Amino acid sequence: MMEFNETLDDLQNGYYIIQKDSGFRFGIDAVLLSDFAKSVTGKVMDLCTGTGIIPLLLVAKSNAEHIDAVEIQPEIADMAKRSVEYNSLTEKVNIQCADLKDAPRLFGKSTYDAVTVNPPYMRTGSGLLNETDNKTISRHEIKCNLDDVIRVSSELLKPHGRLFMVHRPSRLAEIFSAMRQYKLEPKIMRLIAPTEGKEVNLVLVCGIKCAKSDLKIMPTLFVYDEHGNYTKEIDEIYGR
Amino acid sequence: MMEFNETLDDLQNGYYIIQKDSGFRFGIDAVLLSDFAKSVTGKVMDLCTGTGIIPLLLVAKSNAEHIDAVEIQPEIADMAKRSVEYNSLTEKVNIQCADLKDAPRLFGKSTYDAVTVNPPYMRTGSGLLNETDNKTISRHEIKCNLDDVIRVSSELLKPHGRLFMVHRPSRLAEIFSAMRQYKLEPKIMRLIAPTEGKEVNLVLVCGIKCAKSDLKIMPTLFVYDEHGNYTKEIDEIYGR
Repeated sequence: MMEFNETLDDLQNGYYIIQKDSGFRFGIDAVLLSDFAKSVTGKVMDLCTGTGIIPLLLVAKSNAEHIDAVEIQPEIADMAKRSVEYNSLTEKVNIQCADLKDAPRLFGKSTYDAVTVNPPYMRTGSGLLNETDNKTISRHEIKCNLDDVIRVSSELLKPHGRLFMVHRPSRLAEIFSAMRQYKLEPKIMRLIAPTEGKEVNLVLVCGIKCAKSDLKIMPTLFVYDEHGNYTKEIDEIYGR
Repeated sequence: MMEFNETLDDLQNGYYIIQKDSGFRFGIDAVLLSDFAKSVTGKVMDLCTGTGIIPLLLVAKSNAEHIDAVEIQPEIADMAKRSVEYNSLTEKVNIQCADLKDAPRLFGKSTYDAVTVNPPYMRTGSGLLNETDNKTISRHEIKCNLDDVIRVSSELLKPHGRLFMVHRPSRLAEIFSAMRQYKLEPKIMRLIAPTEGKEVNLVLVCGIKCAKSDLKIMPTLFVYDEHGNYTKEIDEIYGR
C-alpha cells in the first residue's frame, strides 16, 4: 500500500493520509481551506487536489455527499488514490488523474454545488525552475494558471454554486477580477497573518456563481499568539 | 465670504474650510485618504471634491505642485471655491464645477501624476432617494458610478500615475476588477475598522497605471482603542 519514501499520517479525524516523507506534505493552507469550506453540501469538486488532503478533511468536517478530485501529476494522484482506498472512502471520494482544463468535459458543466482549490501560488517567471519536479509543479503555474483555475471552477459550478479558494494576498486583485470575469462574485474574504502586526500571507475567498455584488470581509485570522503558540481559533480549526 | 447655514472650521494645518453647519461636513474618510495619498507630487486631480477638503489637506501634507478639483454640484463647488480664496490658495488649487465624466476633455488626458477620490459609496437602488439633495448626491451613485470614477481616473493619469481612493469594503471586488479593466493595477490596500474585532468599514486602495500585478496589503488600521480613545496612529494622522 505504501511505497519507498512515503509516510502514513493520522489526520486526527478518523482518516489517514499517505505523503512523501520529505517535501510533498500538506500545510496549514489546506487545513484553513477545508475549514473555510466546511459548509459545503451535495456534489463537490476539489481541483489541484495533490495527495487528496482537502477531500480527506472535508469527508470528516462537511456534509458533502460526493467529492471528485483532480490531480495532474500521476505519481501524486496515485498517492491520493491509495489514501482513499486505505480509508475505505472509494464510494464517496473519486480521485482522477487529469488536467483540470479537461474537468468540465470529463465531469460535466454546471454540475457541482461547490469547488475547492488550493492552486499553485506562484507565477512562472525566470525559467530557472525544474519543471518536472513534483513540488515545483504544485507551487508554480506551470500546468495551469489562475485564469484556468477560475474559468474551470465557474464552468463546473451550478448557478449559485460556491468556489472556495486559498491563495496569496499579492494575487488578490487578479483573483477578484478573474472571478468577476467568469461570473463568480466574490462574497466572503478572510486574510491570514502569522501574528498580529505581521504582514498577511494567505487569503481565503468564497465566490458564488451568478450572485449579486457584495463582499463581506471577515476579521483577519492570526495563526500564532504573542507567545508563539497557536491562537484559540487555530486550535479549534485543528480540532484540538 | 460665508453664507447662511455655513461655518468656518480650522483644519489645524494652517488652513480653514467652509462647511454647512449641519449635514454636509467632512469625515474621517477624507482625513484617512489625504494621509494615504500624502506622497503625491506634481499635478494632482481630486474628483468628487465636495467642499474641497482633500485639496485643503493635501496642500499642507504633500508636495503636490498643483491641484485641480472637480465637483458637480454648483452650490458645493462654490463653497469649495470660497474656501480656496479665503486661504489664498487660488494659484495652487483650482476648483471646477463640472461633471467628472467631462474632466479628461476639460483638463487633458494622461496629464496627472496622481488622482484622489472619495466617491459616492452607495449604489442607487430603490428609487426612494431625493435625487436633488446635496447629501444624497454625495453619497449615492446618482451622477456617477464606480466604473465612471475609475475609467476617468485612468484617462487623466500619466503612465505610472497613481490613483488613491477610499471606499466601502463591500465594493472591493468591483473596485479591483474595474481598476484592472482600465489598466490601473491595485498595488496597496489598507482596511479600516472602528476597533479590533469589529467589522471593517472602509478601505483605502492605491493603483498604478500600467504597472505589474502585485498587491501589498497593509495591516488593518483601527480607529479607536479598547477604551474608546483614538489609537496612536489615528492621533498621528490627525496631527495631534
